[in-house]
Parts: sequence; C-alpha cells; structure tokens
Amino acid sequence: MSNATPAQRASDWLQRFEKALAAADLKAVAHLFAPECYWRDLVSFTWNIKTQEGRDAITDMLSSQLSHVKPSHFTVSGEPTEADGIVDAWFNFETTTARGLGHLRLKAGDQGDQAWTLLTTMVELKGFEERKGERRIKGAEHGVHPGRKTWLELRKEEEATLGYTKQPDTVIIGGGQGGIMLAARLRRLGVPTIVIERNERPGDSWRKRYKSLCLHDPVWYDHLPYMPFPDDWPVFAPKDKIGDWLESYTKLMEINYWSSTTAKHASFDEAKGEWSVTVERDGKEIVLRPKQLVFALGVSGYANVPKIPGAETFLGDQHHSSKHPGPEAYKGKKAVVLGSNNSAHDICAALWENGVDVTMIQRTSTHIAPSDSLMELALGGLYSEQAVKNGIDHHKADLIFASVPYKIMHTFHIPVYEAMKQRDADLYGRLEQAGFMLDFGDDGSGLFMKYLRRGSGYYIDVGASELVANGSVKLKSKVNIERINPKSVTLSDGTELPADLIVYATGYGSMNQFIADLASPEIADRVGKVWGLGSDTTKDPGPWEGELRNMWKPTQQQQLWIHGGNLHQSRHYSQFLSLQLKARYEGIPTPVYGQADVHHLR
Amino acid sequence: MSNATPAQRASDWLQRFEKALAAADLKAVAHLFAPECYWRDLVSFTWNIKTQEGRDAITDMLSSQLSHVKPSHFTVSGEPTEADGIVDAWFNFETTTARGLGHLRLKAGDQGDQAWTLLTTMVELKGFEERKGERRIKGAEHGVHPGRKTWLELRKEEEATLGYTKQPDTVIIGGGQGGIMLAARLRRLGVPTIVIERNERPGDSWRKRYKSLCLHDPVWYDHLPYMPFPDDWPVFAPKDKIGDWLESYTKLMEINYWSSTTAKHASFDEAKGEWSVTVERDGKEIVLRPKQLVFALGVSGYANVPKIPGAETFLGDQHHSSKHPGPEAYKGKKAVVLGSNNSAHDICAALWENGVDVTMIQRTSTHIAPSDSLMELALGGLYSEQAVKNGIDHHKADLIFASVPYKIMHTFHIPVYEAMKQRDADLYGRLEQAGFMLDFGDDGSGLFMKYLRRGSGYYIDVGASELVANGSVKLKSKVNIERINPKSVTLSDGTELPADLIVYATGYGSMNQFIADLASPEIADRVGKVWGLGSDTTKDPGPWEGELRNMWKPTQQQQLWIHGGNLHQSRHYSQFLSLQLKARYEGIPTPVYGQADVHHLR
Repeated sequence: MSNATPAQRASDWLQRFEKALAAADLKAVAHLFAPECYWRDLVSFTWNIKTQEGRDAITDMLSSQLSHVKPSHFTVSGEPTEADGIVDAWFNFETTTARGLGHLRLKAGDQGDQAWTLLTTMVELKGFEERKGERRIKGAEHGVHPGRKTWLELRKEEEATLGYTKQPDTVIIGGGQGGIMLAARLRRLGVPTIVIERNERPGDSWRKRYKSLCLHDPVWYDHLPYMPFPDDWPVFAPKDKIGDWLESYTKLMEINYWSSTTAKHASFDEAKGEWSVTVERDGKEIVLRPKQLVFALGVSGYANVPKIPGAETFLGDQHHSSKHPGPEAYKGKKAVVLGSNNSAHDICAALWENGVDVTMIQRTSTHIAPSDSLMELALGGLYSEQAVKNGIDHHKADLIFASVPYKIMHTFHIPVYEAMKQRDADLYGRLEQAGFMLDFGDDGSGLFMKYLRRGSGYYIDVGASELVANGSVKLKSKVNIERINPKSVTLSDGTELPADLIVYATGYGSMNQFIADLASPEIADRVGKVWGLGSDTTKDPGPWEGELRNMWKPTQQQQLWIHGGNLHQSRHYSQFLSLQLKARYEGIPTPVYGQADVHHLR
Repeated sequence: MSNATPAQRASDWLQRFEKALAAADLKAVAHLFAPECYWRDLVSFTWNIKTQEGRDAITDMLSSQLSHVKPSHFTVSGEPTEADGIVDAWFNFETTTARGLGHLRLKAGDQGDQAWTLLTTMVELKGFEERKGERRIKGAEHGVHPGRKTWLELRKEEEATLGYTKQPDTVIIGGGQGGIMLAARLRRLGVPTIVIERNERPGDSWRKRYKSLCLHDPVWYDHLPYMPFPDDWPVFAPKDKIGDWLESYTKLMEINYWSSTTAKHASFDEAKGEWSVTVERDGKEIVLRPKQLVFALGVSGYANVPKIPGAETFLGDQHHSSKHPGPEAYKGKKAVVLGSNNSAHDICAALWENGVDVTMIQRTSTHIAPSDSLMELALGGLYSEQAVKNGIDHHKADLIFASVPYKIMHTFHIPVYEAMKQRDADLYGRLEQAGFMLDFGDDGSGLFMKYLRRGSGYYIDVGASELVANGSVKLKSKVNIERINPKSVTLSDGTELPADLIVYATGYGSMNQFIADLASPEIADRVGKVWGLGSDTTKDPGPWEGELRNMWKPTQQQQLWIHGGNLHQSRHYSQFLSLQLKARYEGIPTPVYGQADVHHLR
C-alpha cells in the first residue's frame, strides 16, 4: 500500500467496505476498522444521531440496520489528502432511501488501511429532494392556466388556512434562530409547519437582550442555511443587526411564523398519534393538531434567579441578566453583578463604560478564552476568512467538525488551550493577581467542551477581562450574596456592598422545565435531561452517552423533538432533524437504532 | 507564436502592452491592436463609459489619459483559452487611483498577436476599498470604550440627522431596483446617500403592477449585488416575491430610504456646486442639498396614454397597463387591449384565463421571443444553471457580456435569432396565419438589440402567443383605435368592438420628461435623449454613439446622473456609477475623456 496515493487508498478502502457491506460480511467490515475506531452516523444508517465506538458497536449497529439501509455507490469525492499518517477523504454514498455524504480517516495497519473515524450523513431523501438549482420551480408557470393563483394569493391563502382549516404536520415551539432555521429547511422540504413565538417580531430574542451584546462567535461560524451573510458582515455582529437579519430571513424563507403567540398546553393523543397544542394568538385560543412537536427554546430553560433572603426589601432595581435593559439608567450608581460568565462580563463592561461603580461576584471558577486567541487557535482552521480561501466554507467546516467523535474530541482541544495558556499568560496572571478564579475545564479541554458538557462556565473575552484584571470592574470572588438589604448586599465573607442595582447573571435552568410546564412532568421525565455528553465531569454526570442528550434526534417521547444550540449547531443539525421529520411526513420507514436511555431527569 | 500556449500569448501581449504604455509609445500601442479593434473602458481609463473603436480612437484616448492614469501591473488572471483562432484572457491591472479587471481577445496577425477587443473595468479605488472579506469590521469593537454607541443607536442617529442636520453627498430620485442597488453600493463605499421614493415600501414599484406579472428574465440574470438569491429561487420570480426581496434587501443593506416621499423640485446652484432638492416627507417640505443628484426612475418616463376621440364618453374602465388591477373584476366582460408588447400579452393572457372576452389591437409589428428559446439560444451560455456549473457566475457573465462592443454586438445576435426562427417556425407560422405582424428587428438581431436601441417592440413569450395563435385572445392587427364610444371602440378599419374595459398597453415616454418636470426643461435639454445607441434603426436615430446615451456616466449637466436598466444592468453598472460618485466624494481627480455630445432632445 505504501506507494499508493491517498486517492487510491481511500478508493480501495471504500470498495472493500462496500463489498463487505453488500455481502453482509460483518466480520470483514469490522476488520476494515482499526482497533480504536468510531463510526458517527447522522441519520443515514441509524435514523438517529449516534456514534458507534469500537468494532463491536459497529457490528451491532449493522446487524440491526444493514438489511434495510442497503448502502451502495460509495465513491470518493474531491481529492483525498494525507498528513501525519492519516488519509483524509470525502465520499458520496446511497442507501435505499437517501443520498449521503461521508468522511473517512484511514490509518495504515498491519492488515492494510483501516478506518479510524467514519462519518456518514444524510444529504437528501430520494424522490423528495429540495427544489433547488436545476430542480428549482419556474415561478412564472409558463403557458396559460385558467384560474391559476399568483404566488401572493397562494401565500395569503396558506396564512389564512394553515392552523385553522388545515393542520400543520409540525409545530415548532420557539421562533428564535433555531426554530427559524429548522422551519426554513422544512419549508424547502414541503413539510407544513407553524412556528410559535411569543415575541412580536422574529429576532426579538436577540433584540431584547442587553444592548451592548454582540455575537461571541465569528461570522464564518454563524451563517444561516440557504442565505449566507454578505461579505461585509461584521466579524461579531451586533444583536440588533442579527435580529433584523432573522426577521428578513423569516419573511424571505416564507416561514409560517406566528408571532405574539403563546403556547399554553400540549398533550399527546396516543390513539390518534397526534399532538394537541393550545396556543393563544391575537387574544384567541387556537388548538393545533400536529403530528410532530419540536421544542426549539435554546439549549436551556427558564432564567435562574437565586432566592436570596431580603431580596424583597431591596429598594433599587434587581433583575436577571436576560431582562437587563442596559447601563444608561445607572450612571453614577453602584451595581452588583452576581455571576462571572459571558453575560456577567459583558454587562459589567457596559456598566463600567457608562460610569457605573460595578462589582462582579464570582462564586466558582470561570474559563476565560480571549476572543482573538480562540479565533486563531481553535476556530481559525475551520471558520475564518483564511479557511474560506483554503476551500473550507461553512458547509465543509460543519462536516469536518462533525467528523471528530465526541469520545476523543477533548484530546483535540487540550493542546489548543495549552497554547492559549502560553499566549495569554500575561492576562491570566493578572486576573489571578486580581483574585479571579480561572479554570480550563476539568481536563483542560477548554471552552467548547464546557459548552457541550454543561453549556456554561466560560467567558469569551472581548475586553471585560482587562477591566477585571486592572480593577476597573471590582471583583469579589469565592463568595456569594448571603442576604440583600434595602440599599446593599451582604456577602458570605461578611462584606457589605452598597448597591442600587443587582443583576443576576446566574444562567438558566434545564430545558425540560419547559416540557414539564407545557406538556406534563411525566413527559418531561420520560424525555429526561437535555444536553451534555455524560462525560462524568462537573455538571455532566455519566454514564457516557457519546452524543448530546436528546438533541435533534428521537426522544423517548414519541413525536417530540428538541432543537437548539448556537448558530453553527442550529444550522448544521437542522438539516438532520428536518430530514427525520420529512421522512415521517412522507411515510418513509425510519427504523431507529440505538435510541438513548434516560439516566437523568434534568 | 504558433507553438505558444494561450497563457503565454496573453501574457506576452500584456507585457508588450504595458511596456508600450509605460513608454507612452502610442504607435507601438496602436500596433498591438488589430486593424478592426475595440477598447471598451468602464471608468478605469476614461472616467467615462466609452468604447474606442479603431486604432485612431484608442490613440486619441491615450494621448488624453495616459499621463495621469499611469496603468501598470498587468497580469493574467485565471487560465486563458483559445477557440476559433481567438485567445480569450482575463487580467488584472492598476492605475494611479484604482485596481482594475480586464478582458482581452487576441487574434494572430502577420505582426504577431493583436487585440481584437479589450475591456478595462474599475474594481476599486485604492485606499477606499469596500470593507469586506478580510477588511470587514469587527462589529463587537473588542476592548472597552466608554461612551461608545451600539450599532442600533448609530443607525437611529443617522436616520434622525441625515437630510436634516447633515447633508447627504448623493440623492437618488427613485427607490426601485436601480436606486436600491446603487444605494447599496454607495453604502458600502461610505458615501452618505438618501433614496427618495414616493411609494410606501421598497418593492412597491413591482408590487403595484398587474398581478400575474413574473420577471421575464431568469434568476441567474437578476441577482442583486452582495446578496444573491437563494438557490431555490424560481427561474422567473413572481413580482410580489421580488418586492419582498427588495424590501428586505433595503433594510439589510442599511440604506437610508425615504419612502412615501415625493421629489418636488430640484435646482443646481453653480456657485456652490450643489443641488437643492425639495421633497415632501410626512407632509412636510424638506430641502436637501446634495452634491450629486441621480435619477433612477427606470429607463423610461411617464406612461403614454394616447388621446383618442370619445375617450371621455366611455362608460367602462380604461387605464394604462401600469395601472391595471388584474382580471378578476372583468370576468364575463369584453376587453380591448391596445398594444402588442410584453405588458399587452401578459394582460391579455390573464384576462383570458379569467373568462374575459379579450381582443388585442396590434398597430405595428412585434418581435416575439419564446422564453425557452431565449434561455437556450441567447442567455444560457452566460446566465443559467449550466453556466454556473461551468464556472460562469453572474459576476463573470456580466463582464463577458460587457466585453462585446456595441458596434458589433448585433453580429453576435443575428445567428441566435436565425436559429430561433427555425426552432419556433411552427409558432411563428401560426401567429402569421392569425394575422400577427412579426419582426426580428431592422437587421434581424432580435430582442436584446431592440431593448438597447429603443427599449420596446417585443414580447418574451411565456404562453400568450399560443393564445393569440389559436384565437383564444382575439387579434385585430394593422389597425388602431379611431374613436371610443360609450360601450365600444371603433377601429381604423371601421370595425366596432364592444368593450367594457380598455387597457392602454402603450408604453412609456422618454425619461427626460422627469428631468424637465423636476429640474427644468433647460436641464432636460442639456442632458438630452436618454438610452439608445444611435444605431440609425427604428426609434434609435444616429449618429452612432457607441454606448447607451447618458446612462451611468457623466452627462452634460454637471453632477446629474442617470441610473437604470433591467436587473442585470442595474447590478453591473451601479458598480461603475458608485465608483464615479465615490471618487468625487473623496476629491479624487476624475478627468473625463470623450464626453458624449447631445444630438437629440428626447
């Protein structure tokens, strides 16, 4: 094999793989994988989002799925490369119902090339392709058609009937970025969908946050499906600009978006196999009867506001960070911000900039990742102007990102944060001098692993850390607020801080609180904890799950789905959730392999 | 030379060209061009839009411009090709003030390779590049900046001050597609601009037209700058969908768009070198004092409604096609449509589809170009899904299109329409049988030359011709309406047609009617006729101009500009108009070469 090109090696492996699959020779398949191996599947083999870890898991999955998936037509796509002894290749394939795109990492072993990682993803369902490119509609309907309706008449008719005289197939609760992106994909796939949003306008979930907020992720990471941001879009977009983009996007994608609408109750009728979802729109109760119900309410639940003795006696303003109106009204006053993650830092900086005397209360350690370092060390290879120039647009970047199994992802990240410690040693040193408690995650794997495991515990530094380090933003760490007095707070170390404003930057609860309230506690418990990998690190109890709990895949509650995540995840995983919903809408069999058990309730 | 590759030949020619230019050896330059040769310049050498036809014209232009343009850094871009003895190459170059992109067609002559056509275009002004790609702004303004304003605050401040306490540099009269695209480019270039539009919402100029209207040009031809349509956009987009796109685009591009605003009067103050433009906004008169005034009111003027004796006695509805509300109200009634171009055909078809008895009155011959044939024979090579697959996106297509000199453009088109005559012989035969008067332009060069020369005289057939051919839409040709009676019209051949509705699909007047009304008849006369090439064909009197009259380039009225055209032209030429305006805004010298004389008033 040693003289073979990467293209020959990849092509040869795929041929042997296809042959072994066609012969249902699972032993041969297993031996095409290295002893340490991972096969991550996004919907194409498992109708699930599932990583098979090791040969046994792969064999088990195939014995269940192979006979109906019938994979075929494996062909290398693009030019395979080799680096550090690993051959890297993209490939296309087909199943009985779909076309797929895959990624392969090969290592030379004593028995020839073996797969270290394999990613298989579903691209489109055969016969139900999006009508894009050459398949796009004509629009003008050339020729003459007595009685034909115009595009506008049809849109108005749909708005007047869907949810009233015609039932949607899918109802999405939550019209933030996640709900909007999923709805855009379902629209393209022709799945009748309604999005329920309590705010007045698409984008309000961004607009209503603190006024200095800009995205903490860079533009290359943030594109929505189908309509990329223009090439002058700021690296870190201001919240209102994102809000306007989401609003226009919702309109242009022709999403059936019920704004100013509140979801009040949902129940599942087992006999009919449909949901009954009561919503209030324009002051009237309407009952929707969709087959599928999607919760797209972000990755977290209600705002956490700690119960602190004396809070009711406070004479100033107190509110959760999600309700913080911005600093203007507090110029010359004294503020206490409880918490030390993203929102806490941004709010402290904006208060200080506006002449507020502000103290941050840090209860537990925080991971600080300077934005520039994060861009250069962690994201730049996949999501940057340079990556785009290297031919890695966000579609490709998403797949490369998805190709790294969660089980070993931290090993890819630890060196990045080792480098960050060096690069930003000065800032870290001065933060510690100021008393700030730093961490890099339980195993030093930094920001993104924290995000996946627990969704909290970090600040992407865009400037506030300097204010903490130099004392402009005052810091009290290793303490909590013990009680609240009319004009001050008393900390657990006995200090009393005068305060005109208290901001609770104390995060959010678990998402299945929403499910409990809207559906029932029983359904919430059936679904169980949402998010986290089971890594057995802080706030992410084991056992190991291998994938994010309950996200974008079948849950233990029939026809209930959870969608969310940051812009990158919402973009990428809405593809797979929309295909799962479309398959069910069209009555395509979707035998799910390896549905996750529930180990934790919230 | 015969063994040299196309790349070597192009590179060699460019080197010799650059050397001769650097030495100001105009004889040597002239001999690098073939005896029949064309150098079309879009703003980069001439600060004008101008085609030099022949060696003498080229020499004359260079003797005027070379010393200050100082062109340099000519380098081949991409891979030159050869076909039918012509080498085709793209190249980059620079001038003292700008970076440019060019296109070259070489022919082997007895004195070596010589240029047959040369196109030079300005891409960006040095030091005033758009902040895109790597130059994009950060947005989040990392670090802390006491007193900084958010994006939203700055936008609101701009809306509140521009036109009131701060004067715009440029005012664009007309907020249709042309005004919007130009404003988007000026926004990127940082030229303070206000768009004046009498309608309520961006896109209304499309929305308010007859309801069955879809674009007659395909999607690949219609993209706006910076934000291409999604890949599922219909081939021929319905008017309301385009309207919504324009509305969102205006918002997302952060254009200062004054809707529901009427321009009432404009005068030029020679002493101050600025315009005074009186507009009515929200019921109040406001005087704007821009340096530059752009008319972007389409390529034509007011609706032409012929004065026909007895019109005032008509008891039914009568209106110009631009005011036609759609067919619904006329079911079961009798309609007469005067005219036989695009609008007439579309309106006749929609009326017939809705059960109206409709007669088309054809006064003079019409060019019919079936949409499918037009796509395949004329546009497909540059603007189609296949072209995109071949690497020709709309940016490249626009430049290829621009590289063909107007002087010889008809010779490229005549064979296309010869092929169309063959391909659609059956339809053409049956139309003639039905009495329809057909033409293919004075010289058989078809649709696009008619559009450039006179802006009228054709129908892109999307189905109505079949209705005319088979008699569903009744036809009276070689006649006019001689008088209108209370319930009928009398034709010039004496026929009386009962009528409940008369639609005047009789086109539009000249655009400088608007200039005469808004500024003064003197200014309108100074500017002269707009559009047309001086081809000495029907409705396009000579002398030969070589470019469209007054479009996108300096006019004889200082600081007055005209912008417009179809979506393709508005997209492409807004680039060059915006660069001309930006250069003036920044005080960069812009010595105009070869300003066109005025030969016709309208």
